[in-house]
Order: sequence, then structure tokens, then C-alpha cells
Amino acid sequence: MRIFRSTRAFRTWRRQQDALRPMIGFIPTMGALHAGHRSLIQHARRTCRTVVVSIFVNPLQFGPAEDYHRYPRDLSQDLALCHEEDVDVVFAPQVESWIPPDFQTRVTVDALSTRWEGEQRPTHFQGVTTIVTKLLNLTRPTRIFLGQKDYQQFLVIRQLVKDLELDTRLILCPTVRDPDGLALSSRNHYLTPLQRQQALRLYQALSAGKEAIRRGVRRARLAEKTMAKIIDAASNIRIDYLACCNAQTLEPLTHLQGKVVLLGAIRIGEIRLIDNLIVQIRQ
Amino acid sequence: MRIFRSTRAFRTWRRQQDALRPMIGFIPTMGALHAGHRSLIQHARRTCRTVVVSIFVNPLQFGPAEDYHRYPRDLSQDLALCHEEDVDVVFAPQVESWIPPDFQTRVTVDALSTRWEGEQRPTHFQGVTTIVTKLLNLTRPTRIFLGQKDYQQFLVIRQLVKDLELDTRLILCPTVRDPDGLALSSRNHYLTPLQRQQALRLYQALSAGKEAIRRGVRRARLAEKTMAKIIDAASNIRIDYLACCNAQTLEPLTHLQGKVVLLGAIRIGEIRLIDNLIVQIRQ
Repeated sequence: MRIFRSTRAFRTWRRQQDALRPMIGFIPTMGALHAGHRSLIQHARRTCRTVVVSIFVNPLQFGPAEDYHRYPRDLSQDLALCHEEDVDVVFAPQVESWIPPDFQTRVTVDALSTRWEGEQRPTHFQGVTTIVTKLLNLTRPTRIFLGQKDYQQFLVIRQLVKDLELDTRLILCPTVRDPDGLALSSRNHYLTPLQRQQALRLYQALSAGKEAIRRGVRRARLAEKTMAKIIDAASNIRIDYLACCNAQTLEPLTHLQGKVVLLGAIRIGEIRLIDNLIVQIRQ
Repeated sequence: MRIFRSTRAFRTWRRQQDALRPMIGFIPTMGALHAGHRSLIQHARRTCRTVVVSIFVNPLQFGPAEDYHRYPRDLSQDLALCHEEDVDVVFAPQVESWIPPDFQTRVTVDALSTRWEGEQRPTHFQGVTTIVTKLLNLTRPTRIFLGQKDYQQFLVIRQLVKDLELDTRLILCPTVRDPDGLALSSRNHYLTPLQRQQALRLYQALSAGKEAIRRGVRRARLAEKTMAKIIDAASNIRIDYLACCNAQTLEPLTHLQGKVVLLGAIRIGEIRLIDNLIVQIRQ
């Protein structure tokens, strides 16, 4: 496994690959790697000759009041996981060289970035799309592997790739969950044992919404009420949103039909968690 | 010479080139090709195995009150010029397919885009950088050839390429001028013979400023006054700006030193013209 911390050295390596025309699989991460990332790497490993993982806690995607400084960082543990999964290349740039002081370019995906997470975190997706564009241009992967847990992020990056001709194929991989259903997230590290119990309600709410739809509910408000009731039963969880949306545009639905995504975001104290489930409604 | 109007066909061609590892020279244009573009193509032809010219009147870089609809378009004449100069590939996409209705990504270079042309045309550079990013990702040229006449655009694209890891080398080529000094521009087509005479004053003003600096003037205001006097002598020219700037950052200077660019923009009736000259001051 090769580890690059220098952009210049990584760029040289990437250019050398051109002659080999490799099938490159790419997993962009912010480190704090868990079984969800491991699953993305394994998906890439199965289909690509060369697997590249980037590790970079991207300051541009954190709001001023968010957890950039306390976001978990443990490069040696991350490298150990990459080594176990037979990753070929890790790119882990230093923030000062990757976003130098004269950096001044922003990449924005308008419509998709403004809803849901975008409402709660106004500059979040701009930070994501700016750095993902930079990473994709440098890495030029054949495929990029993204987790369904960040479903809106997947849609935003899909639109970005299409609009800017980024010439990579997006592979959406299933959300990895703890045995009880909690979606894995680096932010789960922040939870106390009690909060960990409460956090599970997000998955339970989404599951109840999905089950209601399976049983025939077609009014979005009804499904949304079913979900909200489960969260509301816990006293100290705040709902940021719980909604039934068109799975391509993320527009909120009134009548449920086609491919629907149930999106949820909650706060437990200062900790913010998101999750989602997709339901395909057959008429 | 191959002509692509379909993005998909051009993408296929570009991917096929990878195996050949060609040296690709790229000249992005809005058509209405003149001797300035011809010179860029000739620069590329001398150093690159494959020369690609794009022809696309980019609606995103025109303001709502600007000349998008009447901008000169003559594809067959443009293709004739490309053929004469032994261009290998012309990419001339249709606007509806290149910027489809669901297009929603914007690329912005902040600091450099806000001055001078950016003040006069607030969304102009965002339109340029969005489409140039798309063109560079699709074409992946070894070198991109840009004219000095659009010097601020050159600096903005240079910053874009650096910030987003676009992996191409920028080649700045000298401004091509009519024998009397008027910088070639597709917008010169709009000028009546009388306006054509008046337009020359922009070059004369910049030349007078450069000459003043050569004779030892180091106060920017003095050089700027020298320039303004020449324009003001013509009754119906409006000055948008005439300024002595740092040639890397475009910040206006008070004391002239180092590499200085004299930037000018004027309006004659509804027609807007820009030009610039660079002076290297040795202490």
C-alpha cells in the first residue's frame, strides 16, 4: 500500500498510471473509518484493479458552529484498516497544502443542494462539491463508491459529475448498520450509551414509515406522522426533518408513488445524525 | 478535420485518445473566429500533436442585458478557418445538449472574478469558469492557449486550474492587433467606421500610459490620468475603467513596481471593448 501526503507526488503517480489504463476505484472519506467505509472499499476491491482511498477532514464542508475541530481523527488506525482491506493507494493531504491560503474556487450544485441538509447546513454541500471536484480531477477514477447513508450527497455528486463532465461512474452502496439497525457514522463516536439507545429511534422511525407504505399508505403526511410519533416519544431528540421525497429530485411528495426516499435528520444534544430508507412503490 | 456536435461522440473520441497519450492543445472559443484565434491555433499547432478547438457561444457568460442573441455566429466560416489552420478536431456542441434544462452546477473563482470586468459584468466569470471546467474535463488537454487580450480571464482560469487540479498548462499568447493597434475582437464587427476610429483610442491611451511608465512615472494616478486624457478627448466614449494593477492579483496600485498591467474598458454607444498592456518595471 502506498501512502501519499503530498499532492505533487500523488499527481505524479496518477499520471504514470495513464499508460496502464487501469480500472481505478475511488472512495473519498474524512477518515475515522468504520465498517461502512470498509464495505465501500470491499465493493471497490471486487471490481477495480486499483483502489484509492482519500482521507481528508474537509474544513469547507463544516459550518462555523459545527464540529470540524473535534471531528475524530486517527490516521494510523485508518491506515491499518486500509492495509487490511488491501487498498492500493491512500491519499491523505495536509490541509494547508490541499487548500492553500490563495484558494478561491467554489463549486456549487444549486437546486439539489438547497433542500434538507442544505437548509440545515447552508455551505455544507458547496464544501463537499468543491473538494470532490478537486479529488476527482486529481484521481480520475473509473468508479467512485458512495454510501447510501449520505443519500442527498450521492445525488448532489451525481449531478456534479454529469454537469461538469467528470467522467466517472457512481456506485451507490447500501448503508451499513449495527445489528440493531443504527446506521454507522463517525459521529456515533460522540454518543453516550444512553444517547446511543435514543439514536436508534431514527432508524425505527424510518422503518415504520417504510412499513406503513408497504401496507398501502400513499399519503405522505400520514407516513411522516407515523415516523414523527416514534421520535417524539423520546423526550430529548429534536427532529430537523422527517420527509417522504422523490428519490431523484428530493422534492417532498404529497402522494407517494414511484421511487420514494424517506429522509431523516435528528439532533440529540449537540450531535446531529441522518439516515434514510428507499421504497420502490409498484402501482 | 473531425467535427463533433454531439458531446457523447466527442467524449468517445477523447477516451480513445488515452491509449495514444497524445499532446493535446486546446483553444476554447465562442466562434466568430478572427486572426487572434488563428494565432492561438498556430501556437498550438507548433507544439501539440492534436489541436482541438471548441466553438460555443456560452449563454452563461452573458448578462441579461448583454449581446448574447446578436453575438456573431457563422459556423461554416469558423470551420473554414479551422480547416485552413489544420485543426484536428472541432467541438461545437448545441446549447440545449451542452447545458440541458436540469443543469445546476456553478464554478466560481472568488477574489479574481470580482474586480474590473467582474464589477461591470457580475455573473460573467462564473459563466466562463463553469463552462471552461466542463470543457477541460471533457477535453483533458495538455495545454490550453489563451489570448492576452482577455488578461483577467487568463488569470481567473489560471486560478481555476490550480484550485481544481485541472492538470493542464496555460499558454498566454500575445494580443493580435490591426496594423493601427486596435486589438482584434469579435465585437469589433459591431463598430461603424466612425466608431472604429474612436475605438482606437483605447489602445492609444494604454500605450501612452505604458510610455509614461517607461519614461519614469511611478505614481499610478499620474499614469491613469495620462490614459484618461486621451479617451476624454473623444466626446462619445465612456470609460468603464482605466487602471494600473498588479499583474498577478489585479489589485490597483498606488506606487508602480514589478509586473504591472494597464487595464482598460470603454463603451462606445452599446459596444463594450477591453484591452490591456503589460509593463515590467525594473528597479
